[in-house]
Amino acid sequence: MLLPLTSNIIIGCLFTTLVAAGKPGKYKRVSDPEGQFYRLGGCPDPHACIIPPDLSTFLPGALLDLRVELHAYDTNTSNPVPEPYKNFKTTIRKDNGKWIDIEKFFELEDSSPPAIEHWNFSWVNTIDVKYADVFDTSDKPVDVAVSSRIWRKLKFDKPGTYDVSVQYGPKNAYTVRYTVVKPKKPKKKAKNAILFIADGCNVGMIAAVRAITKKHTSGKYHEMLSFEDFDQLGHVMTQSVDSLVTDSANSASAYSTGHKSSSAALGVYADSSESPFDDPKVELITELIRRRQPKKAIGVVSTAAGHDATPAAFYVHTRDRDTSAEIIDQIINGVQNWTDPVAPDVWLGGGAQYFQGEESLNGQNYLEELKKNGYQIVMNKKELKKYHGNDKLLGTFRTSHLDTWIDRNMFVNNTIGNGAAPDLSGNDALGSDQPGLTDMTLKALEVLKKRGGDNGFFLMAEAASVDKQLHGLDFPRAFADLIEMEITIKKTVEWLKKNDEYEDTLILFTADHAHGFDVYGSVDQSYITKHASSDDRKRSAVGLYQDSGWPSYDDKDGDGFPDDWTPNIVLAAGTNNGPDHFEAWKLAHNGPRKAAVANDHDIYIGNVEDPAGHYGDGIKWNGNLPVTESVDSHTMTDVFIYANGPGSDFFRKTIDNWQVFFGITEALDLQRSRE
Amino acid sequence: MLLPLTSNIIIGCLFTTLVAAGKPGKYKRVSDPEGQFYRLGGCPDPHACIIPPDLSTFLPGALLDLRVELHAYDTNTSNPVPEPYKNFKTTIRKDNGKWIDIEKFFELEDSSPPAIEHWNFSWVNTIDVKYADVFDTSDKPVDVAVSSRIWRKLKFDKPGTYDVSVQYGPKNAYTVRYTVVKPKKPKKKAKNAILFIADGCNVGMIAAVRAITKKHTSGKYHEMLSFEDFDQLGHVMTQSVDSLVTDSANSASAYSTGHKSSSAALGVYADSSESPFDDPKVELITELIRRRQPKKAIGVVSTAAGHDATPAAFYVHTRDRDTSAEIIDQIINGVQNWTDPVAPDVWLGGGAQYFQGEESLNGQNYLEELKKNGYQIVMNKKELKKYHGNDKLLGTFRTSHLDTWIDRNMFVNNTIGNGAAPDLSGNDALGSDQPGLTDMTLKALEVLKKRGGDNGFFLMAEAASVDKQLHGLDFPRAFADLIEMEITIKKTVEWLKKNDEYEDTLILFTADHAHGFDVYGSVDQSYITKHASSDDRKRSAVGLYQDSGWPSYDDKDGDGFPDDWTPNIVLAAGTNNGPDHFEAWKLAHNGPRKAAVANDHDIYIGNVEDPAGHYGDGIKWNGNLPVTESVDSHTMTDVFIYANGPGSDFFRKTIDNWQVFFGITEALDLQRSRE
Repeated sequence: MLLPLTSNIIIGCLFTTLVAAGKPGKYKRVSDPEGQFYRLGGCPDPHACIIPPDLSTFLPGALLDLRVELHAYDTNTSNPVPEPYKNFKTTIRKDNGKWIDIEKFFELEDSSPPAIEHWNFSWVNTIDVKYADVFDTSDKPVDVAVSSRIWRKLKFDKPGTYDVSVQYGPKNAYTVRYTVVKPKKPKKKAKNAILFIADGCNVGMIAAVRAITKKHTSGKYHEMLSFEDFDQLGHVMTQSVDSLVTDSANSASAYSTGHKSSSAALGVYADSSESPFDDPKVELITELIRRRQPKKAIGVVSTAAGHDATPAAFYVHTRDRDTSAEIIDQIINGVQNWTDPVAPDVWLGGGAQYFQGEESLNGQNYLEELKKNGYQIVMNKKELKKYHGNDKLLGTFRTSHLDTWIDRNMFVNNTIGNGAAPDLSGNDALGSDQPGLTDMTLKALEVLKKRGGDNGFFLMAEAASVDKQLHGLDFPRAFADLIEMEITIKKTVEWLKKNDEYEDTLILFTADHAHGFDVYGSVDQSYITKHASSDDRKRSAVGLYQDSGWPSYDDKDGDGFPDDWTPNIVLAAGTNNGPDHFEAWKLAHNGPRKAAVANDHDIYIGNVEDPAGHYGDGIKWNGNLPVTESVDSHTMTDVFIYANGPGSDFFRKTIDNWQVFFGITEALDLQRSRE
Repeated sequence: MLLPLTSNIIIGCLFTTLVAAGKPGKYKRVSDPEGQFYRLGGCPDPHACIIPPDLSTFLPGALLDLRVELHAYDTNTSNPVPEPYKNFKTTIRKDNGKWIDIEKFFELEDSSPPAIEHWNFSWVNTIDVKYADVFDTSDKPVDVAVSSRIWRKLKFDKPGTYDVSVQYGPKNAYTVRYTVVKPKKPKKKAKNAILFIADGCNVGMIAAVRAITKKHTSGKYHEMLSFEDFDQLGHVMTQSVDSLVTDSANSASAYSTGHKSSSAALGVYADSSESPFDDPKVELITELIRRRQPKKAIGVVSTAAGHDATPAAFYVHTRDRDTSAEIIDQIINGVQNWTDPVAPDVWLGGGAQYFQGEESLNGQNYLEELKKNGYQIVMNKKELKKYHGNDKLLGTFRTSHLDTWIDRNMFVNNTIGNGAAPDLSGNDALGSDQPGLTDMTLKALEVLKKRGGDNGFFLMAEAASVDKQLHGLDFPRAFADLIEMEITIKKTVEWLKKNDEYEDTLILFTADHAHGFDVYGSVDQSYITKHASSDDRKRSAVGLYQDSGWPSYDDKDGDGFPDDWTPNIVLAAGTNNGPDHFEAWKLAHNGPRKAAVANDHDIYIGNVEDPAGHYGDGIKWNGNLPVTESVDSHTMTDVFIYANGPGSDFFRKTIDNWQVFFGITEALDLQRSRE
């Protein structure tokens, strides 16, 4: 018996931006219902939306909110906005059976429909006449009057096919179909699951890092990367509800919930209302663990700020990944009238500025809150290494994102003077003592094993700067952070074997989306510099095919990283999109590369002071994105997934990103309810 | 007992160009033996080469030539060229046993070493001071005096480790190690094997074609591509003996022989001599079939000229893929003093100008020769469809490469007036009646089944224009030819099931290398045209993330191809390298796109008349290759391999391209000799 809730608690945040790496704006994009573009994820009907959308798939017993929206509008914007719909009815049927009022079907305490919510919004194209659609009959935004009902915290108890229908107006109806799967009992249950995510990493990056780190004889490598002997290799499709190309929020959310979503959304499907906190939620794998295997330990590790999209997908619900302060709040407070907060046993990452001080939600001191909730707090690598306790562990090691492996290890000065200190003291020594992904992951494993015991653990560990440095076209930094991930996986396998957990652990290594990255030859750095004065001639520094040879990286000290990141012959690598910039494939010594800068008209142009591609050396690369874009953009190609251990069979072909959730929940035996 | 041959027959051809898509030149590239670059594939020693190189792997009984080269030179080019080495000795040992003279070890009839061959050549960098190397101490080429011996048609009879050593000078020796594998008996023998190659296709192309052809609801596809339910999905590494990035010759050759090679080489390892026909050969899978399962039928199908690199890899040995006339000659004449010619049971493709007339080898009429050898000849789609005989079948349907699917089906006029007629008559009606990949493959299956009977068949079928059109940045044409491949695979599976061959057939679908292709959003074609006058504004025609939506292709007629190739919303797609060009993502109606043209200085610049990216519409894209490059270049990322049927287990992780040969030979039970 569930209580329908007509509104969720709003945690007092302005609606800032819905867009991860794109354009900000309070208007959502709208497209032709007759064509390939939908106005919202899952609104092919011209006036009705049911969210979750058509073809959604659920586990029996998993929680969801269900929202119906009706849109009244007139595309002739000279006319007044029509009255919102007042009468509509939502019914549901199971396995083509009898249609039943939704309240009755779910045996809700309150058998009358929830109150109708109203709001208005304007659907416009942020880029004037872009895309032909019904709203594009004039240059003016089309005002839409919305009527909506939401049913919260529902669940489907039994497997089957469910149709949900909204009847509006005398003849209009819109219906969606859901599938509730039969819970699967794993052939062999995985006690633990570890999900490694190299954010933004495509197959091209794997090949590049292999060429940089592995010795070869006549083109044959002496060894493969650590994860390449995993039991299975598959592909994951990454497109989202309403677009070809996903951002990290909605892709990580698909892994976490079993539901594709929209850009910037975490643990929710997007609705058209203004608040980012009232969108219909779906249950997270971590919430399911807390309900069904409450003694299992949960860890979230990232080299990004811990409120960044990928880690946040494993403990929050918000329409807007940029509501950072609220995301940190949800670590221990969760969302009211939903389930208990996830409160991970281990949470390690950056983002320290949201735990206290002026950027913290309502100025609260979350460090004190966390301590009251049984957490131990660590703020640097030294403290992290020293911790061997049994308590929950929260480590925040820097404001914003942790520095890259190259800056932490090759150019330590770059980690100083950035206001990085996680206690907000400005103490450079503290801010500079950051752990890396390997440090954090191994500590997480130690704590999770202690806390989970025989009940095991679930850990998500992210190499975030692979994505961030690919955005910035800083290829050496992206390579190094991927190498750090590769070594982390290797050491994780060693740890699991040593701790007798290897046979019981499902290990996944995947990405959440790609960049259009590949290697097309090699570059002679002395040549490009020598011929810098000739735009034509310096392009001959690039060697192709039989002239590509091999890069001259070497790893004499055996730490897995090249000893010298500035050899003369480096990879001629690049992405297939980006802003105007200059490319010379040099290593930026003073911190991550800034390839493009805004001019006085807010147009991004090549940065003539970019040390990695200074105009004096660099080959000019004209941008092929809107001129307002400062960085390279994600791409749609499938990403790899390497899988090892119990349950890995699930991951051997091409699957969709939402299916990853079902693969992990099957392996962990989370699909079968004991309620 | 084998006869050592000190020289192979030279088929009288000038050494024209070694380079597939790169720079022509008679000089081979040279690099620092101290560094990462080798002078030839497998020459890490400063003065000695043993070819096949270190770490080569063989099947017991597979044929090979073994060449030793000694290089005398002085990097001070003011000095005269030193005398060539006169005394050197080549020995071999098995499993760390006793060193034995090579002639004695192989029990050669002639127990004395083969006569020493001498030649001189110059090692220079074609691009002046590019790459630091020992030969780069002056701007002059370094002359090298070579002494060489070659032992032909050897074979290792037994599994084990073999070391081959050349002793030269008083103290110098160079040794390589080979592995001869233990032949594997397949768990379940495959009667047939079909190797589908989409040339140049990366994972990004798979995702793009899925988005173009498959319907979806809220980002979930209604169905997958035909090969995506194959038993296994793996990756293949494509780097070659001496470079990061392969061309199609040496990658197809790896599939065909089990040996990586050098750019442009087919069925041989590259030596330093001038002739492209004396390089040390390795045995082709098709030759092995002819020797070990002589009743098995062999088919080679391509939408390219049939002498093009990928199809030729399955029946020829040449250092130079551009020796087209000699390649056609080898169809039925093979290489003297080697094995019998492959003489495929089915050979279908273009390249008609080399079968008769002035471009044919020595002006021979190969069509007559083929008829004498029992071939039926067909020259157009009509004849192909009509053929239902039992004889060998050779179809040559066009001079040069077949036209693309788009030109054959959407713009038939483009197939007219090109001197395409395969009888060299200039008859446009004949030249225009070309079959497609599906037609050719299904006919090949029919003939191969008849000819192979219970002994089965081996078929290689290539979608060549995926690569050719990606080189030309003509994305719609590349998509359409990949869709044709997808449909061909679907219909092949249907044919196999109908003909009761499905359970006995190993089907592989792979590429030979990648292009740096991906999709990063969508493009509004009316917008880009409307704002063509503003270089900045037209870039806003590109929609990213939540603005990318979906392309507006539709397939109402259900033939698997979009009905309209010019919808308003298309994929914002691109490669990560290329020449200067203009990109507007338009479809070129008058034939494949020509994105760049040479100026008076032989520098390739954007083609202002390129209909697909006319400057008036197009976004300017500066090249990032040497300015002498007219097209985009291959990339190094791993390619996919989908595998189905008996033996498919071999292909489920990341393997190296040479291992594909071992996977197929294991499945077909070709590894175990019955000699």
